[in-house]
Amino acid sequence: LAALGEFGLIARIRARVARRSAGAVLGIGDDAAILSAPQDSRWLATTDMLLEGVHFQRCWESPRALGRKALAVNVSDIAAMGGRPLYALLGLGIPPSGVSLLELEAVVEGLEEEAERWGVTIVGGDTCGSASGLVVSVTLLGTPVGPPILRSGARPGEGLWVTGLLGGSAAGLLALERGFRPDRPWPVDLPRPAWIGVSELAAIRSAIDAHLTPEPRLAAGQALAGYASAMLDLSDGVASDVRHLCMESGIRARVWADRVPIHPGAEVLGRLLGRTPLELALQGGEDYELLFAAGTDPLPALAGLAGLPVSRIGEMQAGAPGAELVHPDGRVGSLSGGFDHFRSD
Amino acid sequence: LAALGEFGLIARIRARVARRSAGAVLGIGDDAAILSAPQDSRWLATTDMLLEGVHFQRCWESPRALGRKALAVNVSDIAAMGGRPLYALLGLGIPPSGVSLLELEAVVEGLEEEAERWGVTIVGGDTCGSASGLVVSVTLLGTPVGPPILRSGARPGEGLWVTGLLGGSAAGLLALERGFRPDRPWPVDLPRPAWIGVSELAAIRSAIDAHLTPEPRLAAGQALAGYASAMLDLSDGVASDVRHLCMESGIRARVWADRVPIHPGAEVLGRLLGRTPLELALQGGEDYELLFAAGTDPLPALAGLAGLPVSRIGEMQAGAPGAELVHPDGRVGSLSGGFDHFRSD
Repeated sequence: LAALGEFGLIARIRARVARRSAGAVLGIGDDAAILSAPQDSRWLATTDMLLEGVHFQRCWESPRALGRKALAVNVSDIAAMGGRPLYALLGLGIPPSGVSLLELEAVVEGLEEEAERWGVTIVGGDTCGSASGLVVSVTLLGTPVGPPILRSGARPGEGLWVTGLLGGSAAGLLALERGFRPDRPWPVDLPRPAWIGVSELAAIRSAIDAHLTPEPRLAAGQALAGYASAMLDLSDGVASDVRHLCMESGIRARVWADRVPIHPGAEVLGRLLGRTPLELALQGGEDYELLFAAGTDPLPALAGLAGLPVSRIGEMQAGAPGAELVHPDGRVGSLSGGFDHFRSD
Repeated sequence: LAALGEFGLIARIRARVARRSAGAVLGIGDDAAILSAPQDSRWLATTDMLLEGVHFQRCWESPRALGRKALAVNVSDIAAMGGRPLYALLGLGIPPSGVSLLELEAVVEGLEEEAERWGVTIVGGDTCGSASGLVVSVTLLGTPVGPPILRSGARPGEGLWVTGLLGGSAAGLLALERGFRPDRPWPVDLPRPAWIGVSELAAIRSAIDAHLTPEPRLAAGQALAGYASAMLDLSDGVASDVRHLCMESGIRARVWADRVPIHPGAEVLGRLLGRTPLELALQGGEDYELLFAAGTDPLPALAGLAGLPVSRIGEMQAGAPGAELVHPDGRVGSLSGGFDHFRSD
């Protein structure tokens, strides 16, 4: 990298990012990109950063997976508005040592691979040195495919739904912290209980994948435009994100613990590492599933998405913003916890 | 901050960012912002990060100045396209200690102050923890006011021009590194020579200001639409940026050393600290002046901008991309150097 220099690196990124969609009048290489407006005259804009040591550890996140995830978490935000992603800008902060040019190219390759999947064109960015860790910052622009689905539209009496299975990403992170790796069968320093069979191993692998390369629910988000009254993507854990939905909509929610769809990896890793699967599902972050309220049954809208579970986990209620959890024994508690970057209590 | 939490911080930023321009249908607080298209159907998009320890040191950059600069360097990119900035997204990576809530609010306040100046609305962003230094990442969207001015349009025979005075920012950085501060008269450990008078002190102060709170040349950039054939903003030093212009336009440039307008702070601090003012002007980065090529005299276009010097520093020539420097004695050398985040030779 020192021999190539900043502008050599930009030239290589520019050469690698070959995709040029019709609306991208001018891509990487000038002071700003030029984009032409989509048919819908409204745009969606979102930004998400991944910082080394906070969102990822270089010892277990491959550069390619990191690039994929950096784009995927932004696609998830556009999905949660019921939108279509179009253009991305990439900010790369590169530490003075420890990251090779090959690794940087793999980050861009992963980003480009994910961009290709979702019809996104990388149109520009910024590369610079970083005094410590690797910084990957992505801004994504898109357009609504129907009426944008805000967080504020939920009404009392509506159902509260989630796509997919929850707790997989948090369980996958636990596994990585305990020494599991995507390309290794079992940590050498961890006794392997007899109840771990082929399906349990597959569940662990799937949880790790959910953490390293989350799958944004773009088709579901778009299909829900016109059905969901409020929606957001699950990045901080369902407990926290339900509260966000309630706050923005100005009403309450009640979640039934036994209706929360738990990822099999959360079941296996919870049992293995002494954590409650429900707690991983409610409070673990980064599932990137969609949480939404809907007054009518959303299943017909999602019928085309074979294989994606959709679960009604609760209902919206009148009252001061807040959320409660109904335990299987009928006991009702408050729905608390969830990820917060700064809170220390 | 630990007591307030991530979502408390977001709520405070949201309350502080009051400005809501007509086109910003939905601002901070949802998964993505909703923006309506300007009358021109094309958009400009750019992103720039400021990282602690690389772009700034917290010991001399006030949080408010940091916020202002983070927006200003992006406005400069939109100016260099001949555009009008409209919407900004803010990414904030916050270290675990050493940054108070008051300081973070001052960063947002500075950003908001600068946004107000340039008619920009902050519409969204991302806050997260950072394992080490403070990260401020801004993405700015805008629209062209005329034909966008690319880097690639320069033709042989055209003049090469710059706005403002060069080397001020590099000299200001030298001064800060040597212990000068905006609010202190003179470093106690530095002997003050007799030739330093009031005007020299003012020049040093002005260089420090140029570094800490650069002034993007937005009105000039817009006025040059239709006049300049190629343009970019000076972020890496004129030596490096002239080469970028040549590379993109596929032609050569010749720069006359004695026509380069040198910031008085570069003269004073060069003499004081043993650096050549011309070297600071050519190779110092972050002046954020505009460098452009024009086939006709651009002065009439810029006549309305009282007080902004505009200098013809060279000319564009046919030939393989590259740039040369004509010294005052007639000797011709290559125009080399300039800032590169990674190059170590």
